[in-house]
Amino acid sequence: MAQLRIALAQTNPTVGDLSANAAKLVEWTRDAAARGAHLAVFTEMFLTGYPVEDLVLRTPFVDASVKTLEDSATRLAAEGLGELPVVVGYVDRSGLAPRLGQPKGAPLDAAALLHRGRVVIRTAKHHLPNYGVFDEYRYFVRGDRLPVFRLHGVDVAVAVCEDLWQEGGPVAVVGQAGAGLLVVPNASPYEKDKDDVRLELCARRAREAGCALVYANQVGGQDELVFDGDSLVVDASGALVARAAQFREELLVVDLELPESSVPAGQIAYDAGDGTAITVERVVLSDEPLASYPALPASIAEPLSPPAEVYSALVLAVRDYVAKNGFQSVILGLSGGIDSALTATIASDAIGPSRVHGVLMPSRYTSEHSIADAEELALRQGLNARVVPIGDIVSAFDKEIDLSGLAAENLQARVRGMILMGLSNEHGHLVLTTGNKSELATGYSTLYGDSAGGFAPIKDVPKTMVWELARWRNAHTGEHFLLEAAEPIPVGSITKEPSAELRPDQRDSDSLPPYEVLDRLLDDYVEKDLGSAELIAAGHDPALVARVIRLVDLAEYKRRQYPPGPKITPKNFGRDRRLPITNRWREHTP
Amino acid sequence: MAQLRIALAQTNPTVGDLSANAAKLVEWTRDAAARGAHLAVFTEMFLTGYPVEDLVLRTPFVDASVKTLEDSATRLAAEGLGELPVVVGYVDRSGLAPRLGQPKGAPLDAAALLHRGRVVIRTAKHHLPNYGVFDEYRYFVRGDRLPVFRLHGVDVAVAVCEDLWQEGGPVAVVGQAGAGLLVVPNASPYEKDKDDVRLELCARRAREAGCALVYANQVGGQDELVFDGDSLVVDASGALVARAAQFREELLVVDLELPESSVPAGQIAYDAGDGTAITVERVVLSDEPLASYPALPASIAEPLSPPAEVYSALVLAVRDYVAKNGFQSVILGLSGGIDSALTATIASDAIGPSRVHGVLMPSRYTSEHSIADAEELALRQGLNARVVPIGDIVSAFDKEIDLSGLAAENLQARVRGMILMGLSNEHGHLVLTTGNKSELATGYSTLYGDSAGGFAPIKDVPKTMVWELARWRNAHTGEHFLLEAAEPIPVGSITKEPSAELRPDQRDSDSLPPYEVLDRLLDDYVEKDLGSAELIAAGHDPALVARVIRLVDLAEYKRRQYPPGPKITPKNFGRDRRLPITNRWREHTP
Repeated sequence: MAQLRIALAQTNPTVGDLSANAAKLVEWTRDAAARGAHLAVFTEMFLTGYPVEDLVLRTPFVDASVKTLEDSATRLAAEGLGELPVVVGYVDRSGLAPRLGQPKGAPLDAAALLHRGRVVIRTAKHHLPNYGVFDEYRYFVRGDRLPVFRLHGVDVAVAVCEDLWQEGGPVAVVGQAGAGLLVVPNASPYEKDKDDVRLELCARRAREAGCALVYANQVGGQDELVFDGDSLVVDASGALVARAAQFREELLVVDLELPESSVPAGQIAYDAGDGTAITVERVVLSDEPLASYPALPASIAEPLSPPAEVYSALVLAVRDYVAKNGFQSVILGLSGGIDSALTATIASDAIGPSRVHGVLMPSRYTSEHSIADAEELALRQGLNARVVPIGDIVSAFDKEIDLSGLAAENLQARVRGMILMGLSNEHGHLVLTTGNKSELATGYSTLYGDSAGGFAPIKDVPKTMVWELARWRNAHTGEHFLLEAAEPIPVGSITKEPSAELRPDQRDSDSLPPYEVLDRLLDDYVEKDLGSAELIAAGHDPALVARVIRLVDLAEYKRRQYPPGPKITPKNFGRDRRLPITNRWREHTP
Repeated sequence: MAQLRIALAQTNPTVGDLSANAAKLVEWTRDAAARGAHLAVFTEMFLTGYPVEDLVLRTPFVDASVKTLEDSATRLAAEGLGELPVVVGYVDRSGLAPRLGQPKGAPLDAAALLHRGRVVIRTAKHHLPNYGVFDEYRYFVRGDRLPVFRLHGVDVAVAVCEDLWQEGGPVAVVGQAGAGLLVVPNASPYEKDKDDVRLELCARRAREAGCALVYANQVGGQDELVFDGDSLVVDASGALVARAAQFREELLVVDLELPESSVPAGQIAYDAGDGTAITVERVVLSDEPLASYPALPASIAEPLSPPAEVYSALVLAVRDYVAKNGFQSVILGLSGGIDSALTATIASDAIGPSRVHGVLMPSRYTSEHSIADAEELALRQGLNARVVPIGDIVSAFDKEIDLSGLAAENLQARVRGMILMGLSNEHGHLVLTTGNKSELATGYSTLYGDSAGGFAPIKDVPKTMVWELARWRNAHTGEHFLLEAAEPIPVGSITKEPSAELRPDQRDSDSLPPYEVLDRLLDDYVEKDLGSAELIAAGHDPALVARVIRLVDLAEYKRRQYPPGPKITPKNFGRDRRLPITNRWREHTP
């Protein structure tokens, strides 16, 4: 057996900011070297950030990625770090001849090994996910190799993210290739309870391949996604050896005992079990095992409780959306209700209350307790608050056009949205919306009104979880939460009956079932995608099933009938340019 | 040689409206039979409409599609049409075992042959386009067959849409299979000048396969897409035999002389040249050629001029968006400028001026000629017009919040957007936005202001083409345009200098280059996706290239920073449910 110390760089790159990502590569490699690592592993597409979406179809962007990789190899060596091999993800291109429908330039979701100033290995992801949040058939062509490099006598194989999840392909030949270690750079977005799934997957693949496995994952918010980190290492039996925390950057360093190998260098093609052949390419960095040294104790992060996990994801999402988009501050409406209270708390925890601006916008239907609770929230948290009454503005509209019923309710919501957008345009704040998933899913939201804004922190949080998170946050703190107040949320906001206050004595319960009932049904319909027969079989009330399916589908169609405003599309009609929102890459122009 | 009379059903289905589409199948098959056809060919996914996006992931939807197909076979026979074979597209599912990332239920973009009350053949598209407006790796698994049926002695092969465009696959084995005719159901969206590309492609494939080719294409607006029809028939030498008009429904009937075949029924697998095998499946409907009959004269539609083609696409897009979404009327702001004038004209041509509602919303910056031109437009077209001054509403905002510069300009645009949305909510009109591609691409548009609305008829029309279309429409009429006025657009609106009138003496030329210069550059950057070096090499001014790239990219990022309002996503974080906007399918609920 031979020893190796591996450093997993669980990092937070920014899409398009190639020079900052490259600087971070050097900085973290220096840390890894200082901690005595023999191999540093960064995440999938670390140099470009992930996901880059349509950027990858721009030739100068791919050129910049490849140049950044090559420059990084040189720079690491120049800074005295050339002896430490570094595995890092980036974007490359294949030499394939273009054909109809193939992404322009045939880009690759690539990974490389940097050593002694050179790019020693280049490989690329074989399985391209094109489900859920992934659209990779649109952006990449697939790789067909499994590189194996010998490091201090140990054969180390490299595969990228999705190749671990799918049957067949490069990971399926790791065992035949006789690797002693498989390292996998990832950009695997957070989902509730995904950490359990990941560990189980890594353990299974380690056992199948008969070797230890290093899983390094991206952390941070990027556009609509949050990456949770949760990097981990399992041994050849699938047992957990080390694990990084979720939702924060961490250089996880672990010592492993790995089998020595003496297979000669060269290339062999294997049937990969998925209808393709994978070529194993071997290179040797160093044949001799290291002299024995004392291993470090392994670090295994404690898992977060379910509410802590979700709340941490929301805080990180807001923090990174603000920072990566170049905002300094946020603005939101404070109604006194629980949704805006929780959203304000998340924002204060993310960027500090001094950068959070709350606006109370009372109308004739706003109750005394709403104003009191909103003021109490601002006071407890120390965020900036102001009052802008909407009565006279609504009256000015009423003088010009006659609106009744829902149209009049929507008008109030839109006046509030315009006030927030006006202050945003004047002062540069990012507008946060405060709608929760239960009300958005069922259509209780006004287009260009309460839905107007740049980021919606709790759009994926059902109402029952809004209350759960509020109670949890009032009882807990966290090292990465910037809000210092104990019990930041007024108990009145948590316990009061929900109301939109758009007409006299309005209550959510006038038109919706209890949220406990609604949220269970929404979970089965929206998340689990059950049909009506299945929903009824699962015990939901048939009349409610019919009603909620209608509400959800209508809300969905209305959102799509009224898109954000025109998008610019190539080819005159069609799909919009899917550039990542927070991209920092700018093509150099003279 | 044997004769066959083929009817191409260039039809306009509605996504999700399976019963209406099935009724249309029967109606058009009856017409085809009445005109003596021996084979009727409908379009890709005709029974479900195209594109169905996420609907296809719902089990009850696929069940409904398959049942509609089977019921249609029975119904055609019951109505005395069973002797006429019908090729029609629908959605089916494969029997594949589910695996990670595969679309739920493994749906197929399928086509079937109906004859004598039975579904005689089922096949499915092999090549799944996943570029431009297509996302089919997300929705379908691929077919692996080429069905060939003998009809009156002629072997007829069936392939679906994209299989014609890609090298290899089912179309590549048509020649080896010795078919005398290839019929292809399509749902191929309109792009400028695509008709030339289609004819060339069909001619090439016919020559490669050595047989005649029938290309039946969908027509109509569906969500963001417009299908232009342009169905056509070429002979085995690639010569054009018949062609339907663009942008309207048509049953194109054509007589062909085709080779007889006597290959026995059965299955043979061929190497399809794309790394897959395609199984040719033969069935015999009838071996005997028809007795000789007099052929009909072939009909070849005249191509439209470039402005007629674009204008017709815009009219059809508005007409179908309104109708398929269940609206009765539209509303839009009339500024007196050319963009709102052209948009109103398109709407009047699409649904008739009595269903078009224009609102003049003058501010203190609105000039006399603007009001006069807007009033003149309403008068010429006979559309409904009203005046809602915004001055007092803007003043009411000014009393509560201090806004300056761009924030104040945006406020005016947003007050107008709210008035239109309020009247839309009150009266049920669809709001049309009036922005053109040049200004939207460069960011001269206000979020929740002039961009607020459900459909943006000229969002893909550059400013120079806006003027061209206005002049063209003033000089031409068209059979499918509902507006009867001659010269419907006041000449003042066409000739005046463009201005947003959001501050005193504002002119577009204050901040933008001449539109002739800008539009050429935007075309090269947005449509052709050239990088800055390529743009400069193409002769564009380097300083302007830098400035316009910055404007376009910033506008794009801002649009994405401020999404439409929260979307509901499964799995807590991620991609939204991509349901088609105008879907008519509702799962039956008790």
